[in-house]
Amino acid sequence: MIYTLQEIAKHINAELHGDPDCEIRNVDTLENASTGEISFLSNNRYLHFLKSTKASAVILKAENLVDCPVHALVMENPYLGYANVARLLYPDTVIEPGIHVSANIHSVNIHPTVCIGPYVTVGSNTKIAANVYIGPGCIIGNDITIGEDTRLIANVVLCHGVEIGKRGILHPGVVIGADGFGIANDNGKWLKIPQIGSVKIGNDVEIGANTTVDRGALGNTIIDDGVKIDNQVQIGHNVYIGEHTAIAGCVGIAGSTKIGKRCMIGGAAGISGHIEIVDDVIIMAMTGVANSIKKPGVYASGVPAMDAKTWRKNIATYKHLYALNSRVIKLEKKSK
Amino acid sequence: MIYTLQEIAKHINAELHGDPDCEIRNVDTLENASTGEISFLSNNRYLHFLKSTKASAVILKAENLVDCPVHALVMENPYLGYANVARLLYPDTVIEPGIHVSANIHSVNIHPTVCIGPYVTVGSNTKIAANVYIGPGCIIGNDITIGEDTRLIANVVLCHGVEIGKRGILHPGVVIGADGFGIANDNGKWLKIPQIGSVKIGNDVEIGANTTVDRGALGNTIIDDGVKIDNQVQIGHNVYIGEHTAIAGCVGIAGSTKIGKRCMIGGAAGISGHIEIVDDVIIMAMTGVANSIKKPGVYASGVPAMDAKTWRKNIATYKHLYALNSRVIKLEKKSK
Amino acid sequence: MIYTLQEIAKHINAELHGDPDCEIRNVDTLENASTGEISFLSNNRYLHFLKSTKASAVILKAENLVDCPVHALVMENPYLGYANVARLLYPDTVIEPGIHVSANIHSVNIHPTVCIGPYVTVGSNTKIAANVYIGPGCIIGNDITIGEDTRLIANVVLCHGVEIGKRGILHPGVVIGADGFGIANDNGKWLKIPQIGSVKIGNDVEIGANTTVDRGALGNTIIDDGVKIDNQVQIGHNVYIGEHTAIAGCVGIAGSTKIGKRCMIGGAAGISGHIEIVDDVIIMAMTGVANSIKKPGVYASGVPAMDAKTWRKNIATYKHLYALNSRVIKLEKKSK
Repeated sequence: MIYTLQEIAKHINAELHGDPDCEIRNVDTLENASTGEISFLSNNRYLHFLKSTKASAVILKAENLVDCPVHALVMENPYLGYANVARLLYPDTVIEPGIHVSANIHSVNIHPTVCIGPYVTVGSNTKIAANVYIGPGCIIGNDITIGEDTRLIANVVLCHGVEIGKRGILHPGVVIGADGFGIANDNGKWLKIPQIGSVKIGNDVEIGANTTVDRGALGNTIIDDGVKIDNQVQIGHNVYIGEHTAIAGCVGIAGSTKIGKRCMIGGAAGISGHIEIVDDVIIMAMTGVANSIKKPGVYASGVPAMDAKTWRKNIATYKHLYALNSRVIKLEKKSK
Repeated sequence: MIYTLQEIAKHINAELHGDPDCEIRNVDTLENASTGEISFLSNNRYLHFLKSTKASAVILKAENLVDCPVHALVMENPYLGYANVARLLYPDTVIEPGIHVSANIHSVNIHPTVCIGPYVTVGSNTKIAANVYIGPGCIIGNDITIGEDTRLIANVVLCHGVEIGKRGILHPGVVIGADGFGIANDNGKWLKIPQIGSVKIGNDVEIGANTTVDRGALGNTIIDDGVKIDNQVQIGHNVYIGEHTAIAGCVGIAGSTKIGKRCMIGGAAGISGHIEIVDDVIIMAMTGVANSIKKPGVYASGVPAMDAKTWRKNIATYKHLYALNSRVIKLEKKSK
Repeated sequence: MIYTLQEIAKHINAELHGDPDCEIRNVDTLENASTGEISFLSNNRYLHFLKSTKASAVILKAENLVDCPVHALVMENPYLGYANVARLLYPDTVIEPGIHVSANIHSVNIHPTVCIGPYVTVGSNTKIAANVYIGPGCIIGNDITIGEDTRLIANVVLCHGVEIGKRGILHPGVVIGADGFGIANDNGKWLKIPQIGSVKIGNDVEIGANTTVDRGALGNTIIDDGVKIDNQVQIGHNVYIGEHTAIAGCVGIAGSTKIGKRCMIGGAAGISGHIEIVDDVIIMAMTGVANSIKKPGVYASGVPAMDAKTWRKNIATYKHLYALNSRVIKLEKKSK
């Protein structure tokens, strides 16, 4: 596909500086782009690449226009502009309807526009809406609902009773609705507690490769509309995640925790069970959240890397940190 | 299924306060339960829901009886009572024997009561005992033994030589017996070391979705009876885990480490290789265990979240923590 | 297979002390080895097992020869010796060419020596070189290249366009080339950014079970020759990993980060996006790397476990660490 710069400027709502008829067929980084390609500058870390870029055009903020050697599209949020250009140039592939001959289907409630790949299992009483794509090796249990235009890429497992909304994307290896970690101690032995809830996932939810979302123990685990989850995230039973929250890779969220709307949770953060995080909270990478967070804002607890020598000395002090505090208190009393 | 309160009281060994003939058909939370349902109070965090509960009956401790507006079953451990009620009302589904026509079976040692789903591979010289369930897409290698009543839900991979005991549950995406991370450095390049051990898993072991347990380098990785493991846990080669230890999600345990009986390991904890942890150790979430633990007790090292401003200032001090200690030592000398 | 000690000494380039005709058929640990088996001592933690070993021979350093009660093979790096003995005694199994009748193949470019197992999907325009093994349940998309002698054990997913070099090993549940976590915020909602790059993996790369490597947003995610990656590692879009770097389990590496050659990254470390780590860096387990590392060396930030009482007191001080520093500054001024 080829678009003129004018068409692109209009599509992404940017101000055009340069040749409106310049033809664009691809998007690439400032460093790698060449003639016929558009790029963007949204992180000043990459500003040095702007001056020497071979792109035909660059999407950038007004403040960077002065450094741009080529055509420019100016807007407040160039990253959003890049997203919209990429979506224009690389639209979703069209689903070809049909059920692969090797698939093993036990439900009659599958829309004729649905595409089901090889070695897929679909259980009984499961409803699959229009334009759904179910890639190779997916295992869809009984009593499941999948909304329009949702795509399960490959080897996705949906356990019985799970509901997925419209326009969802579930990447390979995702497991939705496996039993939560429910065990009760009976004289030193663990007794499994049946997990009788399920999982409800809203519309426009994307879930990354090998991420797991457990079914509720009682009641459902709920992931609301517009939530975006990266790879290898673990979401425990009866967790609630509010609309448009984004969760980076390797995060773990323990059971029965409620997370608000529009939160951003950084990579490898860990969130305890049975707590509540309000709307609009940002949690930085590798942070441990042990208690409820009641005010919007940015939170962190990660400790950044040091050279190992310094680290060892600091740890030695850290092990007696409260004692250090006591010693300072003693000095303070003396010095009065 | 419907049970009277008297039947339930007897089953879970609780003291009945209220109508023995009250009929119970379901279990639910204090907040959501309605007529015909039983609930429980085991965490005082939820005490405020007790007073307004619409449940027909509640399992609770004697001390909470005064606040209970409905029939009550009193016992020391209401959570165990809940577990037993849930198990009574939601017994395991019965396995229907049979091998799906699409399965690819190379072994003759499969008990006639076994259920094998679509697209399952079973290698040669593999023994599968009575009432085992092997769900869709599971891949069972050669020379494997699976004990009675064990269930592999879906897409579980068992590599050659693995042994699984009775009544186990392996959730989707579990991989048992993949090669451990064994590499030797040969002049700057890594040489793979054949992993010639295997994995032995005892009876009554549950393993969560996408968890991995590596085969031994030499000798076996061993998971003893009654161990419960949550999702996305990584267990390295030649690890030993003692009876009735419970491991929460996202934990990593490095190679050749030995963990005792009845330990509880919190979410996202990391345990180094070649160390030993005695019986009855509790490790809190996000703790790093670098050295052997020789005494039972509770251990932790996680740093709880702070608002980012405070965090930044604390980190700035932390980077020079040993220097702070030295400065205090100097002050102490002066003040003598 | 049986080898004489002389043959083994020659093969691993060690100095023989003892009977050259002693026959060796297996390798095992010092603790478990018996007659006909060879063992090794590379970690002094296990020195106490040397004196009572029942092995027929032990590979060790010259300094430990005095404590060895049996035949010995002396060399600088006994662990490398062990690796080479294990490789001699346990060579790779030979691949039997053939495509399983249940496989679903859409490409003509598959070498006749390739082995493809049951329920495998291979997309169109995909090239699979000589002696490649593709185990049960693997899903290979369109436009993929797999080099000679590479092995995909089971349930591996390669998304469209991915390139894998020669002699690679991909363990069960690996997902290569799923979409990176690319989202742009549009007035509080997240807009998915098409991930139009791919993944290029060099020669001699091993990737552990359930590890995920995302495709590039623009340009490729690149894993260079000889890189070894353990289980459950997450590698974000456009990451570059240099030759012969080793990455232990549960590590997360965020997008666009560049890691040098011969680095060693400990378990559960987390590495931020858009940073650069030079060659020959060692990062200890559970370390958080938020900024670029410009000098080779060892880096750490993990906090080791303490008993919970001490931990609670230290955390209480830590929350006000900068204030403690200010108090010491005040004392220092006073004491001048």
